[in-house]
Amino acid sequence: MTKFAIIGTGALGGFYGGLLAKAGCDVHFLMRSDAEYVKSNGLRVDSKQGDFHLPKVNAYSNVHDMPKCDCVILALKSTQNHVLAGLLPLLMHDDSLVLVLQNGLHVEQVARDVVGEGRVAGGCCFLCSNKVGPGHIRHLDYGKILMGPYRGLDDRENGPSMERLALIQLEMTGAGIDCKTTDLLTLARWRKLMWNIPFNGLSVILNASTDRIMAVPASRALAEAIIREVRQTACNCGHDIEPEFVQYMMDETDQMAPYDSSMRLDFLAGRPMEVESIYGNALRAAERANVQSPIMRVLYQQLLFLAVEH
Amino acid sequence: MTKFAIIGTGALGGFYGGLLAKAGCDVHFLMRSDAEYVKSNGLRVDSKQGDFHLPKVNAYSNVHDMPKCDCVILALKSTQNHVLAGLLPLLMHDDSLVLVLQNGLHVEQVARDVVGEGRVAGGCCFLCSNKVGPGHIRHLDYGKILMGPYRGLDDRENGPSMERLALIQLEMTGAGIDCKTTDLLTLARWRKLMWNIPFNGLSVILNASTDRIMAVPASRALAEAIIREVRQTACNCGHDIEPEFVQYMMDETDQMAPYDSSMRLDFLAGRPMEVESIYGNALRAAERANVQSPIMRVLYQQLLFLAVEH
Repeated sequence: MTKFAIIGTGALGGFYGGLLAKAGCDVHFLMRSDAEYVKSNGLRVDSKQGDFHLPKVNAYSNVHDMPKCDCVILALKSTQNHVLAGLLPLLMHDDSLVLVLQNGLHVEQVARDVVGEGRVAGGCCFLCSNKVGPGHIRHLDYGKILMGPYRGLDDRENGPSMERLALIQLEMTGAGIDCKTTDLLTLARWRKLMWNIPFNGLSVILNASTDRIMAVPASRALAEAIIREVRQTACNCGHDIEPEFVQYMMDETDQMAPYDSSMRLDFLAGRPMEVESIYGNALRAAERANVQSPIMRVLYQQLLFLAVEH
Repeated sequence: MTKFAIIGTGALGGFYGGLLAKAGCDVHFLMRSDAEYVKSNGLRVDSKQGDFHLPKVNAYSNVHDMPKCDCVILALKSTQNHVLAGLLPLLMHDDSLVLVLQNGLHVEQVARDVVGEGRVAGGCCFLCSNKVGPGHIRHLDYGKILMGPYRGLDDRENGPSMERLALIQLEMTGAGIDCKTTDLLTLARWRKLMWNIPFNGLSVILNASTDRIMAVPASRALAEAIIREVRQTACNCGHDIEPEFVQYMMDETDQMAPYDSSMRLDFLAGRPMEVESIYGNALRAAERANVQSPIMRVLYQQLLFLAVEH
């Protein structure tokens, strides 16, 4: 049986880790402020898939108390990745794998630099979930994970084998998690950026929820221009996305309920925003491929200003 | 002696019109809310050039009461130009001239459409002035006017003759106004846009004064990128600006005191912003010349959103 470590037990780690633990998997949660509370009171997940409470979970506040695990799931915000060098070596044996469930592009690279080639996978999560209190997660909607081997900044390194990921997938699926694998992780990441780059940024810069951005003709046209530019950038970087996916993203956003992006929630709460993993890394990938992405760069620069000045 | 009409007696019209009246010129002020107050109390200008009070000025609240004038100075915000069709014909005889002292590009076109070819001049004002109360203007710094014949959207129409403008210049100079003429009005307008396009827009979008924009590396780089794009757009539209002017604009802004652009003041006060005259008209000029100006377009779309949503 796979031994899982969950690094960061917030909206994402608490939900997926909770489902795994509920299914009887061997799960070990690293927490900060919530560890003592969860040791006494357990972990609670309110979910449209069914509410549940786990009275006894393996909760830790100190990584040195944790066992070596086979699969270390990174569920921290990518703004916290500077802690990985001090964590991952303590949690991994020779055959351990890291699974990075974070927003952005090449967010796996920090873990890759710590643990070496061939041991890191990444996953795009399509999840709407919040942490509402200590050890208390509210899952609102969605939940799919699309995961694949991480092959480095140039997509030429070896990643973990697809067979290895299929075993993880099997355990996740068995726990009720909608989990798929892909051999084209970077493509999957770019496809998700086609939503995150326009709507995370504009929702902060324009101080608006997605429905207002879509309702005003000027910002709607801007959102569509950004989506087109992200797609073109991805294609020019060698990751083909069909042109119809632009309209699909617009249609999906039109059909969403008024929504505050995770970046807007972070900004309004005064938390660090994932500007580098979403914008900085995408622009650096574009630069390596000699691709101009002028609108993405404007958003990046505006967000960097807002991150320090407001 | 030239008979002047001043349309709009705010920070700009009150200052220049006040100086002309003080010098003994024949000046007729059209006002809205301030007319009765000024008829009773006169016009007061506090200026670093010297404070003065004009106890008796020709103030009107109704254009039908005004005489025909030789030079009609437009000192309204360009967002008010829809009123011109109802005003200008009543104020002008066959040899009258309109002088448009507004921000932006091709702001003269509305007046041109009302009064016909050859009768409109425009002026770039480098003025730092506020209206602080009814009939009370505070002039803080600068004040130069650079004016020239308006030649239509394609720069090929006839404008008023340079000789005609020289006579206006002479009266202005005699009144203590630093006034120069140019036969290249559109070039002068683009040069001014190299400041207005970056700093008006960013100060609203980032909710920041110029000193903060210049202090943070990301926004400083963005401002410089915008200045470069405006210059390149102007050059591609046939208005040559020397490359060194980019650095000059940065240096000038570095040396300014912390400054709230007129657009930011309008935004914070809930007044209409001059988005179309500064951004919309520049982008339309770029489109006519098949020039791409991606950063200018982002700012335009963001400002249009903020204009309706905040």
